[in-house]
Amino acid sequence: MKRRDWLATVATLPSFGALGALGALGGVAGCAAPALRGTGDLGVVVGRANGTLYLVDTTARTLIGEVPGLGDLSHASVVFSRDGRYAYVFGRDGGLSMVDLLGQHLVRRVLQAGNAIGGAISDDGTLVAAQNYTPGGIRVFDARTLDLVADVPAAYAPGKLSRVVGLVDLPGRRFAYSLFDADAIWITDCSDPKNPRTQRFDGIGHQPYDALVTPDGRYYIAGLFGKDGLALLDLWAEKPTVRRILGGYGKGQAPLPVFKMPHLRGWAVAGRRAYLPAIGRHEVLVVDTETWQEVGRIPIAGQPVFVMARPDGRQVWVNFAVPDYHRVQVIDTQTQQIVQTLAPGKAVLHMEFTPRSDTVWISSRDDNRVSVLDTRNFATLARLDVPAPSGIFFTARAARMGF
Amino acid sequence: MKRRDWLATVATLPSFGALGALGALGGVAGCAAPALRGTGDLGVVVGRANGTLYLVDTTARTLIGEVPGLGDLSHASVVFSRDGRYAYVFGRDGGLSMVDLLGQHLVRRVLQAGNAIGGAISDDGTLVAAQNYTPGGIRVFDARTLDLVADVPAAYAPGKLSRVVGLVDLPGRRFAYSLFDADAIWITDCSDPKNPRTQRFDGIGHQPYDALVTPDGRYYIAGLFGKDGLALLDLWAEKPTVRRILGGYGKGQAPLPVFKMPHLRGWAVAGRRAYLPAIGRHEVLVVDTETWQEVGRIPIAGQPVFVMARPDGRQVWVNFAVPDYHRVQVIDTQTQQIVQTLAPGKAVLHMEFTPRSDTVWISSRDDNRVSVLDTRNFATLARLDVPAPSGIFFTARAARMGF
Repeated sequence: MKRRDWLATVATLPSFGALGALGALGGVAGCAAPALRGTGDLGVVVGRANGTLYLVDTTARTLIGEVPGLGDLSHASVVFSRDGRYAYVFGRDGGLSMVDLLGQHLVRRVLQAGNAIGGAISDDGTLVAAQNYTPGGIRVFDARTLDLVADVPAAYAPGKLSRVVGLVDLPGRRFAYSLFDADAIWITDCSDPKNPRTQRFDGIGHQPYDALVTPDGRYYIAGLFGKDGLALLDLWAEKPTVRRILGGYGKGQAPLPVFKMPHLRGWAVAGRRAYLPAIGRHEVLVVDTETWQEVGRIPIAGQPVFVMARPDGRQVWVNFAVPDYHRVQVIDTQTQQIVQTLAPGKAVLHMEFTPRSDTVWISSRDDNRVSVLDTRNFATLARLDVPAPSGIFFTARAARMGF
Repeated sequence: MKRRDWLATVATLPSFGALGALGALGGVAGCAAPALRGTGDLGVVVGRANGTLYLVDTTARTLIGEVPGLGDLSHASVVFSRDGRYAYVFGRDGGLSMVDLLGQHLVRRVLQAGNAIGGAISDDGTLVAAQNYTPGGIRVFDARTLDLVADVPAAYAPGKLSRVVGLVDLPGRRFAYSLFDADAIWITDCSDPKNPRTQRFDGIGHQPYDALVTPDGRYYIAGLFGKDGLALLDLWAEKPTVRRILGGYGKGQAPLPVFKMPHLRGWAVAGRRAYLPAIGRHEVLVVDTETWQEVGRIPIAGQPVFVMARPDGRQVWVNFAVPDYHRVQVIDTQTQQIVQTLAPGKAVLHMEFTPRSDTVWISSRDDNRVSVLDTRNFATLARLDVPAPSGIFFTARAARMGF
């Protein structure tokens, strides 16, 4: 009854409940309230070493506050409430924390699993879902209260639960995700949260390690670690079926050691093309999103980790695994050429664009720095001191699918 | 010196100044401050008959306040500050009003022209630009103070100023717009606001009446009233040049009377296709955005006014000119078929989607009603009583180009 134990854990956190209550009061009491401000230009930077969320203002390009006490934030990720006020932080330790960006405090926190790897929020903003390694599966929570509303163990064989990766939101309060240990993609429909319905796609290929959904929500693409290629699901098809794309892109090559798994989460789609990291290879793969055939490869400075399209699709930015993780390269999607190689600091872990493409924020963990760059002339506009920064997330994500 | 007169008008509005000051105090004073709230789920509905802006909450789907005193709001349009807190309202009477959505009051208002037709905000949120009929040209203002920073009269011949239409923001603090009386497209670069530089494209075709920029900011497309077809400008080209597309789409047909000019503003691009209203004809034109050739026509219930793609591109929604303006039709972009015909109320003037496509808000002027519909099953989720509602605008626009 492993799962029951975790549910028990979820239920017994009075201290966090108290914290939440206090926080809520602080947030709304008239005289105690901070000055009114919009939330459209707010964001957060994950301090992975100290369990702290650093709050930033993307207009002033400054730190405006910090919220500690969020547990193990290595490999943490963040989604936002649809009003842009609350950040939901998914910690590696299974902690799910709801942070008020205006009140600058922890509202609520539950320890929802033993080992988690991120989450998503439903299109209507009512449900927050976590993808878990231990116990393998997803858990769905009420976005206001963090009460558990659905528990979907990734049971693929008697007594076996798969680690879950590549969780994304789909229209209609649905979530798509991949089962690393079960070579499967599942889609869970939570339109009736008390009775989630799950559609299963088996045999998609060996060891899906991460996934993305295209900006229009049409295609779900899972990268395969145990096999060359990726698995593609057309969610708009009458009867969706999984097909393999980019099969054998490393064929005939001695496989390289993989220093860090690439991330697919977020969009790498620019115009008609998708840009995808080649596992272990110093290449970005270019794919035509109509035929899903490879149409090019771009040699890069190391093993890619994030391959991210600027929101307008004019550029694709790439960061790297060790030993090349002090570098960032920029690809012009018109010419497919690298137009810039940057060295913004040691151990670049993440990048985030402002939604209208004018700036990019880059975290350099080992230089304890976040750099703000102009994406057009690559000038450094600001530097923020943040201890061991990793993920950077802006509230504009609340208005987009698949983030 | 017509222009000087207008500048004088801009400078002499002490009463509005006072209002602004009071408002600002009300907005930030601790105890007087409304409760903190996010701005990501806020929006406004233009009350065209009474010069009032109605404030809405897209999560609760309710009216939350109103701000009167905004002058003539017939054909008014709205843009938002990048933090989502302030709405800039462009009135037909040349009034430019800055409204605080959190404080729910008018912050500042200037009468910047005699007859205006809308505006835009720069990609970095620092500049607000108005497009004017009288005097013809654009005026650019500081987004915080509404101080005039640039005045660009649309002088195309000695003593002649053209009416300006189709103003959109472009990356790098640039604005593109069309000169109805001069058959021209101009692009003004305000990266140095005190010294705006304007690039002119002449002879683009007779009487451009409105325009749009594609979601990626690459193509600027102006509709031509005096000629079949549209003018297309590839802004990513080494040397941008204007070409005619859809030339003679009404050829060989007796031109129909035009009851209302269609609007192009906003995106009608879904995947690889653009959906455009045919002037005077009961048709939507479908265009391939790579070849810019017509690839289809969809017969519809009347003369189209707005042809708007749902943010995810899966549907295109159309409203109509008299006598068919009680109807709304929905096109499925997969099948190119009309999948729904709705009658949400009398005199449908505008539609606005929530950014993740789950709902659409529709204004029915003569029924004094705004309807909120589920875009997937077309169920009516809410109805709001608003006197003579016209334009509907949500703060998510602040994070997008060309809105």
